[in-house]
Amino acid sequence: MVGVGRTIDWTDGAVVIVDQCALPAEHRLLRLETVTELIGAIQRLAVRGAPALGAAGALGVALAARAHDGDAGAVRADAERLATARPTAVNLRWGVERALAKLPGGTEAVLAEALTLLDEDVRVNREASGHAARLLLDRCERRPLRLLTHCNTGRLAAVDWGTALGVVRHLHAARQLEYVLADETRPLLQGARLTAWELAQEKIPYRLLPDSAAAAAMARGLVDAVVVGADRIAANGDTANKIGTYAVALAAARHGLPFVVVAPSSTVDGELPDGGAIVLEQRAPEEVTHVAGTLVAPEGAEAFNPAFDVTPVDLITAVVTEHGVVAGSAR
Amino acid sequence: MVGVGRTIDWTDGAVVIVDQCALPAEHRLLRLETVTELIGAIQRLAVRGAPALGAAGALGVALAARAHDGDAGAVRADAERLATARPTAVNLRWGVERALAKLPGGTEAVLAEALTLLDEDVRVNREASGHAARLLLDRCERRPLRLLTHCNTGRLAAVDWGTALGVVRHLHAARQLEYVLADETRPLLQGARLTAWELAQEKIPYRLLPDSAAAAAMARGLVDAVVVGADRIAANGDTANKIGTYAVALAAARHGLPFVVVAPSSTVDGELPDGGAIVLEQRAPEEVTHVAGTLVAPEGAEAFNPAFDVTPVDLITAVVTEHGVVAGSAR
Repeated sequence: MVGVGRTIDWTDGAVVIVDQCALPAEHRLLRLETVTELIGAIQRLAVRGAPALGAAGALGVALAARAHDGDAGAVRADAERLATARPTAVNLRWGVERALAKLPGGTEAVLAEALTLLDEDVRVNREASGHAARLLLDRCERRPLRLLTHCNTGRLAAVDWGTALGVVRHLHAARQLEYVLADETRPLLQGARLTAWELAQEKIPYRLLPDSAAAAAMARGLVDAVVVGADRIAANGDTANKIGTYAVALAAARHGLPFVVVAPSSTVDGELPDGGAIVLEQRAPEEVTHVAGTLVAPEGAEAFNPAFDVTPVDLITAVVTEHGVVAGSAR
Repeated sequence: MVGVGRTIDWTDGAVVIVDQCALPAEHRLLRLETVTELIGAIQRLAVRGAPALGAAGALGVALAARAHDGDAGAVRADAERLATARPTAVNLRWGVERALAKLPGGTEAVLAEALTLLDEDVRVNREASGHAARLLLDRCERRPLRLLTHCNTGRLAAVDWGTALGVVRHLHAARQLEYVLADETRPLLQGARLTAWELAQEKIPYRLLPDSAAAAAMARGLVDAVVVGADRIAANGDTANKIGTYAVALAAARHGLPFVVVAPSSTVDGELPDGGAIVLEQRAPEEVTHVAGTLVAPEGAEAFNPAFDVTPVDLITAVVTEHGVVAGSAR
């Protein structure tokens, strides 16, 4: 097992991340010394996942505070560029604003707040996923559990530990996990590249599947419950998450399987009454028309490529944060 | 536009197919002179699609009859190998048996029957897709129509014309089609490679999307109806089709959109009361772990890779063959 340390951290005056564009072929660290470098890494998804983006936002403000010592206007301008680098995960702006609030206290106060946020991320995700693991053990009769998940919600989506994949870790440690079915998660294959890599590292049994096969796996009785993360959760529990989450939730509802969203409370956007107002990022068609650098469609093909979709709360059994179940439907 | 002719035909004593493994990069014909070569092409999906497999089965018996002139036992052995080359599409065995029934009349009678079957395939798919096009125009108010489809059901899935993509052709010719949303169809990307290629050839407006984005497209109001093909239809209307069809049907039901299956009547397996007994082919994990020849998962990753799933008839608005609507639910 590679000694990965944290997915994102502060080292010697820079932000250091695990480069998620290089996995699973290579585990490589990237050192980001400017806000512009960090924004580039965020936009090409070298660092991604709502909790990790919260950490990136806070650490980015620390980079800005150091770069513009004493110039609050310049720091705020950098902070705004950071907060808008990607639109859907609310954690990014949350992390930026939390660190920025300490700017009157000076550069070191900003950095201290960012580092506190990183520590908290590990703790709250461990707690949230612990609550969700207990909920699943309460709801599911079969032992050990067979979970299906979508995208990557592990260490690589957070500072450490993870959200939905944190549930997997808790259950595996408690010998209550039979296997994970990991959706490959087109177009960028975070399931195949990142979740599978994390599970392989920890020797947790898993199988990859095309996203479109999740419903078939449920129909065959291969799944006891679904766990996913979130990028923004509206006040009513409607949840924006990686494209494809909605389809998995529809299938889980059809088969009467618990569908559990696990996220830190920083992912809840209490200002939005429901999911209708969540801004869903559209990404480049090349993510669909090319795979691993190879064109797999006719030259010039256009694509519908939203990075996220919204799962209505009526399809969600429970939204679980470090505070426990905060939303969900009767199903 | 490439002068494609038929996807599968008989030319100078051999079966000639459009090599679907080479598209969209290259439009190339393969000449298959033996049953073993034909089986290889079927198994690596150089020729695929239920109607085309029916044609391949019949033409393969003609190859066998020529190779084993007068030796009915040898022809029957080849025919059985052909019929079991892939398990799910009932058309394969149907085509084999139809040609084989003419064996007592001699080699030329077998070939004549196969060629008759090819002509019929073009006609019945044109009729079936015409029925389905009229049904959609009856059911949908918006003009022109915006259709979503899964996998490839066009010329390349049949001898010519196609089934669900035949509906697209009819509507486009009648100026009643706005665009097609074409699911890329993991793992083998028949939507990205084949459907997009056919649509681009005919200048029919389309966009590709990850399979997992179909539900999001419906949620955004971008889809008026879904049309798909079939590999085997049970007597009650339960339909086996390319993996992912079931998830699309669940999403269509959620959004109250017509979900129409289009197939020649040779795809109906009247011996099966429902979809529970349909054999669903499992394919190699490498189709999931590798894309375009590149490993996209950890070395040695296992995969759940069923080629097909079953959509229960309660999710299907209508199953349409050349005889009109033969099954379907009230929705």
